[in-house]
Amino acid sequence: MARTPATIRRLPEKSVEDRAVIDAILDEGFVCHVAYLIDGRPVVIPTLYVRDGDSCLLHGSTASGIAAAARRGSPLSIAVTLVDGLVVARSGFESSVNYRSVVIHGHGTVLSGDAHARALDLMVEGLIPGRLADIRSPTDIELRKTTVVSVPLDTISAKVSAGPPEDDIADIGTGVWAGVVPMTTTYGDPEPSPDLEPNVEVPDYLTTLERS
Amino acid sequence: MARTPATIRRLPEKSVEDRAVIDAILDEGFVCHVAYLIDGRPVVIPTLYVRDGDSCLLHGSTASGIAAAARRGSPLSIAVTLVDGLVVARSGFESSVNYRSVVIHGHGTVLSGDAHARALDLMVEGLIPGRLADIRSPTDIELRKTTVVSVPLDTISAKVSAGPPEDDIADIGTGVWAGVVPMTTTYGDPEPSPDLEPNVEVPDYLTTLERS
Repeated sequence: MARTPATIRRLPEKSVEDRAVIDAILDEGFVCHVAYLIDGRPVVIPTLYVRDGDSCLLHGSTASGIAAAARRGSPLSIAVTLVDGLVVARSGFESSVNYRSVVIHGHGTVLSGDAHARALDLMVEGLIPGRLADIRSPTDIELRKTTVVSVPLDTISAKVSAGPPEDDIADIGTGVWAGVVPMTTTYGDPEPSPDLEPNVEVPDYLTTLERS
Repeated sequence: MARTPATIRRLPEKSVEDRAVIDAILDEGFVCHVAYLIDGRPVVIPTLYVRDGDSCLLHGSTASGIAAAARRGSPLSIAVTLVDGLVVARSGFESSVNYRSVVIHGHGTVLSGDAHARALDLMVEGLIPGRLADIRSPTDIELRKTTVVSVPLDTISAKVSAGPPEDDIADIGTGVWAGVVPMTTTYGDPEPSPDLEPNVEVPDYLTTLERS
């Protein structure tokens, strides 16, 4: 389950430095994994995020360990991973997944005031594009109960693995099927809340959702 | 984008201690995010894993930072997250995702010998159930180029968030649609490698793949 330079034939796992590619990965995802330190030990948790230009905005409750780490100037590491397919090789060694991932390292800043309120709007729109126009503004209590931590996209790297398996030449022609099984995220039919009043139509932006 | 106890109505975000639920989450996923320390700073990366009874087996190259951390007795943190749907609430505050996640903390052991070879087999079968019977055994070189780090499932926690939005009572009846958009992972038609010889049929286990 590795992809070594010796066997690369088409699109290998490769480091990507193209900021447009990195931004596209970040903009397609909405769940990231954030690592921070507690008492010198690493902790990783999933959270929602959205890219805002040259920053990654991380969502958390006020009690969030991410916000606490940011406040004490402790470094964060953030990973966004999109899985695109199963790489079904003729050996276990070359079997793997096709994926696109971004890792960010940096120190976070807890946003406040207008920047905080704006970040929460971006978070809604990043999660459900088109939604923001339909919902009310946050209350003061809601604003106090949430934190957003901004991390600059300064120290950032990406890896992209795509294409068919890179089987060893000796394994080709052995009658074993090899290839890729593509994976996509599918959005099902919106399910109304039990407390939804009758005759409220599903907004178009929920029926046309698409993410690879 | 939080789910506070005050507004919980049906299935809230909740901590889960039921080992069967935890195992089901771990067995459904195959990509995890692992945090470890480099020079006292947290680093998080995605990798493949498989559950083996009371252990989580992490895949890596021999140069893997995960293996290096395990060798020097440095703690690891591992997260597995499955996203089940978009929670489309009537406020940004209650908008979120339904998800199931597991976080493991512990020290890793780099496997060797038979345990290492067996772990690689489990990894193949975890990624592509049914595949192992179709492929050859790893070569000695391949075994040397891969590492598997085993982490016991001793310190483990899970969270499950499911069900409809938990909107504030004041927001209900305002004519704004609310509900959940389910998300699933869909496997497409297997795409043969360009180097696949003619007349090799796609194995059944690739056309019947299913993961929520």
